[in-house]
Amino acid sequence: MSDNRSAAIEYARSQHDRYLSDLIELVRIPSVSTDPAHKADMRVAAEHVVTRLKAIGMENIQIIETAGHPAIYADYLHSPGKPTVIIYGHYDVQPAEPLDLWETPPYEPTLRDGKLFGRGASDMKGQVMASIHAVEAVMKHGGLPVNVKWLIEGEEEIGSPNLLKVIEDNQELFKADFALNPDGGILGEELPAIIYGLRGLAYFEVHVYGPDHDLHSGIYGGAVLNPAAELTRLIAGMHDANGHITLPGFYEDVRPLDADERAELARLPTDNDYYLKHTGAPMLWGEKGYSPVEHTGGRPTLEVNGLLSGFTGEGAKTVLPSKAMAKISCRLVPDQDPEAIHQSLLKYMEQNVRSAVTWDVKVVSAGNPASITSRNSEGVKALANAMETVWGVRPLFRREGGSVPVVYQMNKILGIDSVLTGFGLPDDNLHAPNEKLTLGPWYKGIEALIHFFHNL
Amino acid sequence: MSDNRSAAIEYARSQHDRYLSDLIELVRIPSVSTDPAHKADMRVAAEHVVTRLKAIGMENIQIIETAGHPAIYADYLHSPGKPTVIIYGHYDVQPAEPLDLWETPPYEPTLRDGKLFGRGASDMKGQVMASIHAVEAVMKHGGLPVNVKWLIEGEEEIGSPNLLKVIEDNQELFKADFALNPDGGILGEELPAIIYGLRGLAYFEVHVYGPDHDLHSGIYGGAVLNPAAELTRLIAGMHDANGHITLPGFYEDVRPLDADERAELARLPTDNDYYLKHTGAPMLWGEKGYSPVEHTGGRPTLEVNGLLSGFTGEGAKTVLPSKAMAKISCRLVPDQDPEAIHQSLLKYMEQNVRSAVTWDVKVVSAGNPASITSRNSEGVKALANAMETVWGVRPLFRREGGSVPVVYQMNKILGIDSVLTGFGLPDDNLHAPNEKLTLGPWYKGIEALIHFFHNL
Repeated sequence: MSDNRSAAIEYARSQHDRYLSDLIELVRIPSVSTDPAHKADMRVAAEHVVTRLKAIGMENIQIIETAGHPAIYADYLHSPGKPTVIIYGHYDVQPAEPLDLWETPPYEPTLRDGKLFGRGASDMKGQVMASIHAVEAVMKHGGLPVNVKWLIEGEEEIGSPNLLKVIEDNQELFKADFALNPDGGILGEELPAIIYGLRGLAYFEVHVYGPDHDLHSGIYGGAVLNPAAELTRLIAGMHDANGHITLPGFYEDVRPLDADERAELARLPTDNDYYLKHTGAPMLWGEKGYSPVEHTGGRPTLEVNGLLSGFTGEGAKTVLPSKAMAKISCRLVPDQDPEAIHQSLLKYMEQNVRSAVTWDVKVVSAGNPASITSRNSEGVKALANAMETVWGVRPLFRREGGSVPVVYQMNKILGIDSVLTGFGLPDDNLHAPNEKLTLGPWYKGIEALIHFFHNL
Repeated sequence: MSDNRSAAIEYARSQHDRYLSDLIELVRIPSVSTDPAHKADMRVAAEHVVTRLKAIGMENIQIIETAGHPAIYADYLHSPGKPTVIIYGHYDVQPAEPLDLWETPPYEPTLRDGKLFGRGASDMKGQVMASIHAVEAVMKHGGLPVNVKWLIEGEEEIGSPNLLKVIEDNQELFKADFALNPDGGILGEELPAIIYGLRGLAYFEVHVYGPDHDLHSGIYGGAVLNPAAELTRLIAGMHDANGHITLPGFYEDVRPLDADERAELARLPTDNDYYLKHTGAPMLWGEKGYSPVEHTGGRPTLEVNGLLSGFTGEGAKTVLPSKAMAKISCRLVPDQDPEAIHQSLLKYMEQNVRSAVTWDVKVVSAGNPASITSRNSEGVKALANAMETVWGVRPLFRREGGSVPVVYQMNKILGIDSVLTGFGLPDDNLHAPNEKLTLGPWYKGIEALIHFFHNL
């Protein structure tokens, strides 16, 4: 190990108390992006991050105003000829409600059993601070061997509505070789992980209309097609008995999982028992021929997210509803195109809806394809080796079933891949009461990031 | 025509102004049974009806208290050896909301173009008053040639929750040969009608449960069976492509429509255009081999009354719901048994629900079978002849698709059939703003009831 590298690691190990108190300061700020009552707190949190970036020597710091909450840019570009990494983060948090389920108040960070409890401790103030601490440690001991840029937004928890414009408007500023995005997590205290694939998302509302007003089910029932019944028939027909999706051409662009990747995914500790435990479902069920980790990471889905029609209150109302609605969304894998999926859904409806009703499909969102990074890119290799150095085991390579719009947006606009990681655990209660950060893996994560910068 | 009969008719013709002002007085009382704010008005309306019954000479008048609003009994039993008719009515009305859609206030009855506008004018204060006026006219001119009893309840618009107990507790009091129930209607100003069949009702909630909490559709979607999707598959399977219901044994007890009855039903003016106009559906649709009037009157149905699952607000929430619910009800025909239909639904679920979810079926109501009266009973013949005398055309014989619990309750407890009629029109806006009663057919209806009593 180089002197600089080991000095930085040693330094980081000496700073645990300060790292913790720095994080506590940030978690104290209730930066809830969705709640207008916290608008001032959002600004306080952004300025707090700016202060931190300035303190470790970052340059060209800018607060980029948006139609919503501001984003932060900073850089340190003093290693010509070396790669430029853009580090992504967000300083906003989910609302803390329901408050009565918190054992200690969400914005009074509390240490118990080596875990820091507080809203945002894991998602993702802890991860932002880990990145800042790692960069600082490296800078202090021989200087940064790479160039870094930062993009810390304030609207991730509300779907990053203004981020696309921020990136589009500042393409030159954000130019980089790849992104480091620590908004993911690892699989256990001793199970480091790197996410190399994310699913995309296309979200629709399907409406079926029958009679022009709600009818009395006695007087008219039997003589008209019930739109709720027709909607159920349409949805039921969207899967076959093997769990395959039947929309015309739905699988046309799906990149198959090759044997190599399936073997890698099979190494993951997320087996059937894991999915049974975390879902609480009576049994697992999915597309024939694939494992749960493939179902959720490597295969596309079509899910009903919501159903609404007619009378849903207590008791009996004998209505024959005039309309019925379903929220339906597809998780997409490489190389599916959300707009092609939209067309596929329209074609299915055209082919299947009976003419005794009318229908339409509203696109709620269809601009978010899947993304995937080579497991052999420079960034991934540097991080994988760093994690192996720290944990002593090779990290697991995961495909994540969810969607992280910024990863796709950076790829589309800036042409760069993201290395996705993070040092939280699966049971950190993200978006739930009693969110926590386990400090052991978090300190290891800071060390891993120090190695990562040196590995590049 | 006997002197008494023609004198009564002549008298009724001379009383139109008084009949109208009497009705206006009753419609002025906002006797909304569902609204606790109108509890005192309910009592005022009941006492108003009592006063009317007393005024025409009825005897043994009783206000029968219930857990809700009171029912009224009265009788006049001075024709030994002649039949006893129990006249049913209700003095409560539906709420008038939305008030802003009324052209004139609902409880300030207003005459326009020979129609009286006001809540309850047609449903059914007009019908109750028509019965009282007819009995009075007959009594004044030679006396009642039959025995009459009255049962006027105050809870019809909330489903008659206490009526069963009232009848059960007073079986001797309500003993009669048959019931006259004018809570139906005719089909046009020149189209008198008698309802001889009503469908029954069995109402269920079907619940499907999957994961034990709502899941992130990205992280877990694909690995578990979506309960909303499973519910749609189950509902879709409840009908085949010909609109037949697939629940095991569902049609076992259905009394077929015979050729004679189908010919009679085919006389009805409620053709395809009628159903298209009144439903506003893009086209009609129903069980193969039957006409709309048969679909709604003579054949059983299974309708989805409501659907609810997951996220149904604006925009996107990527939830994989933990449960899904449907309200499903069956309209039943003679001789289907609601409890057998419940068992049939349970059997369908047992045979079809996949084990990756759990389920249950809640019975909302299953105590209301269909009822049917002979078209040749004494009561029906007396009324049919009376209508033909007044309108100059033979009345149409209808099966009504809805359910009138009191008809079944009287049949079950008292062992009697009901003759269902009424003098409102299909466009009277029952349960809607601008309810009205067209006076022409209403006056004719009073005359028809005078003939009816004389025909018995």
